[in-house]
Amino acid sequence: RMRILVTGGAGFVGSHLVDRLMMAGHEVIVLDNFFTGRKKNVMHWVNHPNFQLVSHDVVEPIMLEVDQIYHLACPASPPHYQYNPVKTIKTSTMGTLNMLGLAKRVKARILLTSTSEVYGDPEVHPQPETYWGNVNPIGPRACYDEGKRVAETMMYAYQKQSKVDVRVARIFNTFGPRMHPNDGRVVSNFIIQALQDKDITIYGNGEQTRSFQYVSDLVEGLIRLMNGDYDQPTNIGNPDEYTVNDFSKFIKELTRSSSKISHLEATADDPRKRKPDITVAKRELGWEPVVDVKTGLAKTIEYFAGVLDEGG
Amino acid sequence: RMRILVTGGAGFVGSHLVDRLMMAGHEVIVLDNFFTGRKKNVMHWVNHPNFQLVSHDVVEPIMLEVDQIYHLACPASPPHYQYNPVKTIKTSTMGTLNMLGLAKRVKARILLTSTSEVYGDPEVHPQPETYWGNVNPIGPRACYDEGKRVAETMMYAYQKQSKVDVRVARIFNTFGPRMHPNDGRVVSNFIIQALQDKDITIYGNGEQTRSFQYVSDLVEGLIRLMNGDYDQPTNIGNPDEYTVNDFSKFIKELTRSSSKISHLEATADDPRKRKPDITVAKRELGWEPVVDVKTGLAKTIEYFAGVLDEGG
Ligand SMILES: NC(=O)c1ccc[n+]([C@@H]2O[C@H](COP(=O)([O-])OP(=O)(O)OC[C@H]3O[C@@H](n4cnc5c(N)ncnc54)[C@H](O)[C@@H]3O)[C@@H](O)[C@H]2O)c1
Ligand SMILES: NC(=O)c1ccc[n+]([C@@H]2O[C@H](COP(=O)([O-])OP(=O)(O)OC[C@H]3O[C@@H](n4cnc5c(N)ncnc54)[C@H](O)[C@@H]3O)[C@@H](O)[C@H]2O)c1
Ligand SMILES: O=c1ccn([C@@H]2O[C@H](COP(=O)(O)OP(=O)(O)O)[C@@H](O)[C@H]2O)c(=O)[nH]1
Ligand SMILES: O=c1ccn([C@@H]2O[C@H](COP(=O)(O)OP(=O)(O)O)[C@@H](O)[C@H]2O)c(=O)[nH]1
Ligand SMILES: O=c1ccn([C@@H]2O[C@H](COP(=O)(O)OP(=O)(O)O)[C@@H](O)[C@H]2O)c(=O)[nH]1
Ligand SMILES: O=c1ccn([C@@H]2O[C@H](COP(=O)(O)OP(=O)(O)O)[C@@H](O)[C@H]2O)c(=O)[nH]1
Repeated sequence: RMRILVTGGAGFVGSHLVDRLMMAGHEVIVLDNFFTGRKKNVMHWVNHPNFQLVSHDVVEPIMLEVDQIYHLACPASPPHYQYNPVKTIKTSTMGTLNMLGLAKRVKARILLTSTSEVYGDPEVHPQPETYWGNVNPIGPRACYDEGKRVAETMMYAYQKQSKVDVRVARIFNTFGPRMHPNDGRVVSNFIIQALQDKDITIYGNGEQTRSFQYVSDLVEGLIRLMNGDYDQPTNIGNPDEYTVNDFSKFIKELTRSSSKISHLEATADDPRKRKPDITVAKRELGWEPVVDVKTGLAKTIEYFAGVLDEGG
Repeated sequence: RMRILVTGGAGFVGSHLVDRLMMAGHEVIVLDNFFTGRKKNVMHWVNHPNFQLVSHDVVEPIMLEVDQIYHLACPASPPHYQYNPVKTIKTSTMGTLNMLGLAKRVKARILLTSTSEVYGDPEVHPQPETYWGNVNPIGPRACYDEGKRVAETMMYAYQKQSKVDVRVARIFNTFGPRMHPNDGRVVSNFIIQALQDKDITIYGNGEQTRSFQYVSDLVEGLIRLMNGDYDQPTNIGNPDEYTVNDFSKFIKELTRSSSKISHLEATADDPRKRKPDITVAKRELGWEPVVDVKTGLAKTIEYFAGVLDEGG
């Protein structure tokens, strides 16, 4: 039994990770500033003796005693991270420095949730961890992409210089229950639009691709990475790749929706394709996704249908 | 007449910039932590009423009242910036955030000295500002390269969000008097080795290229960029490109040295070629280098000969 810190633990991914860690009997501390996270996501643990929810911004230093740190705190969807780009960069830079300073002081192992966005608009497909990426350092996505790149740099600088025990997950697009309905990401947008028979909004020609992973697979991958011996960046994603056009049709089918497809303007620097090479995760962690996209989407659709019902 | 802050003003480039600004009659404040800079470089101004030298680390906040900020503070040579990679990253991230916070508060224009290293090991040659680069986010050079990339990201995030008036120079390899003799960079190493008839150390096969600019050209470029209207990243460099092999022969000739050439192991992630496309600087600033490499090297050799004489 360990004492485990989860920053961003009231968010989408964080709250599912907390569920797994609590179920395994660990003590869990969640730090969150509730920018995109909600107390509701972890409400079911608030009265549990092993659980602590701390309202805290990782940009500020904090003193805690823990064995492991899952460092997730950072807005993840483009509309959220572009809402206040300066804050997004501070979260990735100062926030990660603070968590590394904490990890160093208490000798805790720390895992950073990095992202497939470190590959930018990739010129290698699918993307292995050895690919250095193609990121615009001054574009609208840079506050997130460059913030995560330099957060990775920090991880390995502290490893080299201060022997901090680090893990880096490069997460590819993930979906599931507890995604923020106003998140702006493609899965939540399309499902909600389809359920309401509103127009499905495709940005650009829709020929860009993404590969979608269900959240339980991600959580399993994070836990294996944290507790294994492999310390280099590791892609965690489902290689099941769709064009945004095909994905919109898939969601229409699954929801039996009568929505129309509407094409809006493309967003700046939108990556044209993305698909993980998961050779490393298979070899080093014995991990691969087990939930197929259709099954995952069915659960997510059910979740959003419930949210819409509640909302009236 | 303006009040101008120069961070890193006791370093190689900074001290030449300070000379130009002082000569133009401005008030100049230098902030430096003397990691690689030396008081000696600005000694000749210390008693001038318009000059102030403040011993300060940019990683800490500071309150000042200024009109312009040249933000140079950051070690620049690979051995120096790899000596303490964590500190290098803190300097680029927290240091730049502090200077941007200051610029925002006092409404000063701020210029960041970024670097050709944001292009990494480039796959486009020569490099225009529109090239997104090829940088290893977790390699030994990352603390510098990714630090500068995210510093650029911060500049444009503050511009967009807080209307801070920003300028970004991407500086290519520069040389001249006051380079640190133990700097480890190719120009100082080769000249000192040649003057002492010691082996000239080439890392790897020597077929990698660099393009070398004399420091007075750089200073002219920085001043034009700061005082012009163009606010996008601007390459400042001399397109005169050499292989390291040819450069070593050139220096042997100019110093009439009997040094032998010795090939050492290549360093990790060493960029294979580098040459600025300076179309933007020409068009927007009417700037191009005017000192040819031979003339610049002659002055630099004279300088290092003096340093060696003094040293005994
Ligand atoms: N979901 C994905 O598809 C995906 C893909 C790649 C990477 N990731 C990464 O996984 C992590 C979690 O993503 P998510 O999808 O759960 O996003 P999310 O927005 O639901 O969760 C982020 C959480 O961090 C909190 N937070 C943000 N800034 C903070 C700060 N300064 N201090 C304290 N807390 C802060 C938010 O309130 C929220 O609870 C993020 O680091 C993200 O970059 C997610
Ligand atoms: N010289 C080049 O070829 C070259 C090329 C590209 C970019 N640049 C950039 O130009 C700038 C100046 O480079 P340089 O060649 O003069 O290097 P330098 O090492 O001589 O000067 C850097 C100065 O910054 C100071 N400094 C470092 N960290 C500091 C901190 N945390 N707080 C306060 N002061 C600090 C050092 O003491 C030194 O005086 C740097 O930003 C560098 O990245 C230089
Ligand atoms: O338990 C801790 C230890 C450190 N830090 C912060 O982590 C950052 C980086 O720590 P490091 O030890 O590298 O920095 P230093 O204090 O040496 O500058 C600093 O801003 C600390 O305030 C923290 O928040 N909690
Ligand atoms: O309503 C939407 C939301 C997103 N997208 C596209 O779907 C892809 C995935 O976007 P998301 O914001 O989910 O994540 P990203 O992978 O871009 O961070 C991108 O090509 C978006 O342009 C879309 O066409 N319509
Ligand atoms: O005159 C100033 C104003 C700000 N800052 C620092 O600059 C950073 C970024 O400033 P910003 O205004 O963005 O940050 P905030 O204070 O709003 O968090 C902060 O750490 C401040 O301490 C500074 O050093 N001098
Ligand atoms: O003693 C030396 C120092 C540097 N170099 C090479 O010269 C080039 C320029 O190195 P420097 O450190 O001056 O600057 P960089 O452009 O790599 O930051 C690189 O290819 C180095 O490997 C070399 O061959 N011998």
